[in-house]
Amino acid sequence: MQSIRIALDAFGGDNAPQVNVDGAFLALKEFQDLEILLVGREEDLKPLIKESPETSRISIVDAREVFPMSEKPSLLLRKKETSLYKAAIQVKDANADALVSAGNTGGVLAAALFVVGRIKGVDRGAIAVLVPSKNGFTILIDAGANAEARAEHLRDFGTMGYEYAKLLGREKPKVGLLNVGEEQEKGTELTKLAFDYLKNDLGDSFAGNVEGRDINYGDVDVVVCSGFDGNIAMKTMEGTGKLISATLKKEIKKSGLFGIIGALFLKRALGRLKKTMDPSEYGGAFILGVKGAVVKAHGNSNALAIKNAIRVAYQGVKGDLIKKLEEKLGGK
Amino acid sequence: MQSIRIALDAFGGDNAPQVNVDGAFLALKEFQDLEILLVGREEDLKPLIKESPETSRISIVDAREVFPMSEKPSLLLRKKETSLYKAAIQVKDANADALVSAGNTGGVLAAALFVVGRIKGVDRGAIAVLVPSKNGFTILIDAGANAEARAEHLRDFGTMGYEYAKLLGREKPKVGLLNVGEEQEKGTELTKLAFDYLKNDLGDSFAGNVEGRDINYGDVDVVVCSGFDGNIAMKTMEGTGKLISATLKKEIKKSGLFGIIGALFLKRALGRLKKTMDPSEYGGAFILGVKGAVVKAHGNSNALAIKNAIRVAYQGVKGDLIKKLEEKLGGK
Repeated sequence: MQSIRIALDAFGGDNAPQVNVDGAFLALKEFQDLEILLVGREEDLKPLIKESPETSRISIVDAREVFPMSEKPSLLLRKKETSLYKAAIQVKDANADALVSAGNTGGVLAAALFVVGRIKGVDRGAIAVLVPSKNGFTILIDAGANAEARAEHLRDFGTMGYEYAKLLGREKPKVGLLNVGEEQEKGTELTKLAFDYLKNDLGDSFAGNVEGRDINYGDVDVVVCSGFDGNIAMKTMEGTGKLISATLKKEIKKSGLFGIIGALFLKRALGRLKKTMDPSEYGGAFILGVKGAVVKAHGNSNALAIKNAIRVAYQGVKGDLIKKLEEKLGGK
Repeated sequence: MQSIRIALDAFGGDNAPQVNVDGAFLALKEFQDLEILLVGREEDLKPLIKESPETSRISIVDAREVFPMSEKPSLLLRKKETSLYKAAIQVKDANADALVSAGNTGGVLAAALFVVGRIKGVDRGAIAVLVPSKNGFTILIDAGANAEARAEHLRDFGTMGYEYAKLLGREKPKVGLLNVGEEQEKGTELTKLAFDYLKNDLGDSFAGNVEGRDINYGDVDVVVCSGFDGNIAMKTMEGTGKLISATLKKEIKKSGLFGIIGALFLKRALGRLKKTMDPSEYGGAFILGVKGAVVKAHGNSNALAIKNAIRVAYQGVKGDLIKKLEEKLGGK
């Protein structure tokens, strides 16, 4: 059986390299046909690799530098000794099937688009993020790869999101277009044109226009939008979540008799709530439209989040996601 | 002392006319220099007006029809016998200083823009909504009057939001531009141009770019955005709130020992939370850029929400909001 090889940016993220290595081992335990290339300073990584049944499936690709979390993304292409760049090169050179990084988001995006490279015929890559919803999760695409979007891009995002949803187990994914109302004539010139394109490409799988409330609490599997609106929506969710948590905590103080037990209860409930609302639980963001599986894990990932990100990349390779997108979007 | 006259669409909203009349009396009790014109079917309204010290300051303007909640807004101009249209005419004819309606949102917008009329030199009216935030509230403008927006419109929304914030008691309002990042170069061609305009018009009162999380959990008093993004943000908040409430309720079932008390506690906390997150508590949406104070109350308003909407309109007139906007934006 052909094993799946994933290049892990061992020095990307706030808690690197320890949690990255720990996450790698968690993934290796879970998937027997997985091999991981740890990319980063060899002398720092070696001591972190303990002898275990998994050790034979892990190897190190030396990279001397780290691409800083706050660095200007465009500089990645000039920093060829960074663990992020070198991990991306592994995919470009077909030495690995996928790239996983918890590093600088813009940097990972640059690595995906300009090192791994876009699928021929795909104009724009997109970030697909799983946001919590009453169905478990909804795929939001584009979550922020591009600020501006043309209708043709939204059309491609629809196909990317559809295939990604199938990969994640949704049998007949429904795709919605983010708009200000459900009627077809609603919205801007962009959404009106995108509506026609999506209808044409996705047929019955296109559920038409959806609204902001449908991202967290709707019935579609995929919500298509420009990177600008995806970013606004994601961060609005974050702000609303913070306000609600803060408000509930205040309630504790006012809750008299209930105070003590209420606090205990709420501590637990908010803990689980945070988990529900935390995208990193879902394995990070998949960068779609490029010639390899590229997954961005949260910068503050712990070992579990790194493992989840590796799992998503593994599933992407196993499910031939890139090939399916090349067939549907390639050479358009 | 010159009294303030407000035309109330007595038949607008899901609970009209009863709560509208009750709300009117609550407002008349609160403001001694307030007069209210109840616009609607005289024979239905008369029985609802009980003899009281306030009765002398309430009068009826007869209107035979009701503009349906689901009607196409553009049809308002052809339905001159509706309570909404006739209430707007009162403002146009300077027989009232303000219009308050809990009716069809698009209809109220049409009444504001095409019956009351835009301020000369103002290209677009905008809906200013108060959304809950850690500072109490943040003004979101435009919350959905126009899908498309040009940079000149966002510039005007900034001035409108600034003056509205001052009216609501913010001494030195800070205005932010909704964007995907805080750096000036972030975003689209639209936001880059709008950034320069807002900086030029508002000077130090312009706080630069803000992000989605700043709507509910930021430090600015006003967030400026296109009606498309304002609508996305508002409805995303709604969806996130619903998901969180549903998640917490599920916790009750899992919370074993804490279950009973937890449920009692949560019932109260969620009740207060709902109140915190409900814009109608803040008096509805002010439609800015028109030659009169026009306030849209929630369709499902109760008497208190109607009173709050009347209060906001009253404050707008009392504070000369329209005149200030005419001075700053007029004849541009």
